[in-house]
Amino acid sequence: MSELTIWTYDWVPEGPRGFVRDLRLRWACEEAGLSYAVRTIPFDGRETNHLAHQPFGQIPFLKDDELEIFESGAGLLHLARKSDKLMPRDPVGEAATLQWTIAALNSIEMVTVPWWFLKITGAENEGLTGWMGKRLDQLERVLSKQEWLVAERFTVADLLMADVLRISQVRSFGDRPATEAYVTRVTNRPAFKKARADQIGHFKAADQKRAEKKSN
Amino acid sequence: MSELTIWTYDWVPEGPRGFVRDLRLRWACEEAGLSYAVRTIPFDGRETNHLAHQPFGQIPFLKDDELEIFESGAGLLHLARKSDKLMPRDPVGEAATLQWTIAALNSIEMVTVPWWFLKITGAENEGLTGWMGKRLDQLERVLSKQEWLVAERFTVADLLMADVLRISQVRSFGDRPATEAYVTRVTNRPAFKKARADQIGHFKAADQKRAEKKSN
Repeated sequence: MSELTIWTYDWVPEGPRGFVRDLRLRWACEEAGLSYAVRTIPFDGRETNHLAHQPFGQIPFLKDDELEIFESGAGLLHLARKSDKLMPRDPVGEAATLQWTIAALNSIEMVTVPWWFLKITGAENEGLTGWMGKRLDQLERVLSKQEWLVAERFTVADLLMADVLRISQVRSFGDRPATEAYVTRVTNRPAFKKARADQIGHFKAADQKRAEKKSN
Repeated sequence: MSELTIWTYDWVPEGPRGFVRDLRLRWACEEAGLSYAVRTIPFDGRETNHLAHQPFGQIPFLKDDELEIFESGAGLLHLARKSDKLMPRDPVGEAATLQWTIAALNSIEMVTVPWWFLKITGAENEGLTGWMGKRLDQLERVLSKQEWLVAERFTVADLLMADVLRISQVRSFGDRPATEAYVTRVTNRPAFKKARADQIGHFKAADQKRAEKKSN
């Protein structure tokens, strides 16, 4: 059994708690019953203090014995190969999991994250909003015909797609009942609830330590 | 030996020729010496005419015997497992290839494609441009220390990263000599040149047929 360590920040402000992407890896480990440790790098100085581990200054990254891997999507696909609870073992099921994992990252998140970025900076763009709406309509068409993205069962592709939709808060963007029901279905899983509670607890526990440090 | 088919459009306008993403899969097959056929779906009606194969109405998708896979990034990772010319066989090299492939899609292309989208629609956004600049600076730091992203050799991660940078035409965006040299190095490979020439030839050959059809 390999030793898994998920690296995240020691602390983040309240806003992103429950949404920081180490949650994706915690969730996958919980689904698969893989034991893991959580370790931290400082939030202060995050843009440059861990470039040797993550060249874009982000978290999470995953350590698996001597192997290190960054990008939450890559970490998920790496974990998926350890457990058939995350991905079917047959070539067709594996290819479908891979394609929908990449679709979550490159067809949906590639539009939702910039949309969100423009929105919070007060620069919403009609063209980009329209593009996102089109992509979400296409996804709604898929989800209105099937409960899960792959092989009529939960896979790591659902974990990622639901997280992408949840994070960007695009669920209520228009009337897409199948997508709404899908995100609810996926995030009702006990493994998601535990991962989310653990992450929120982790950052909350750091509040006092940080307050003491700041007051010194 | 499995039978590979790359699906693309029957025709596209001149602008995107040499940039359409079936090129990524052609290029990977050329690098690996995998034989493949190219088949087409109509460009006209593309948004809805092949949703059973690609729910976002895009190309390429790849057929590998009875298995079908969409998303060019997923197709590349699928092909990478067929040949060590595309990805090392050891777990550390494989994980590094996976992480950089996802980084190309989700840390670079997630910013460069929306940047390009806003630019061509005349809605360039300072915040997004700054975000992209930061990401490209981070990538420049990596590429100033190494010739290839993974294991001191060409992998499918370089193929994708170079294509992402090339497509978005962000090379000359600021002074990033290591990135510039990297894109030149990767696109100087004979397999890229053949794939690009083949794609341009494929669409050019369709011009006359299309003109005849339109005049009827």
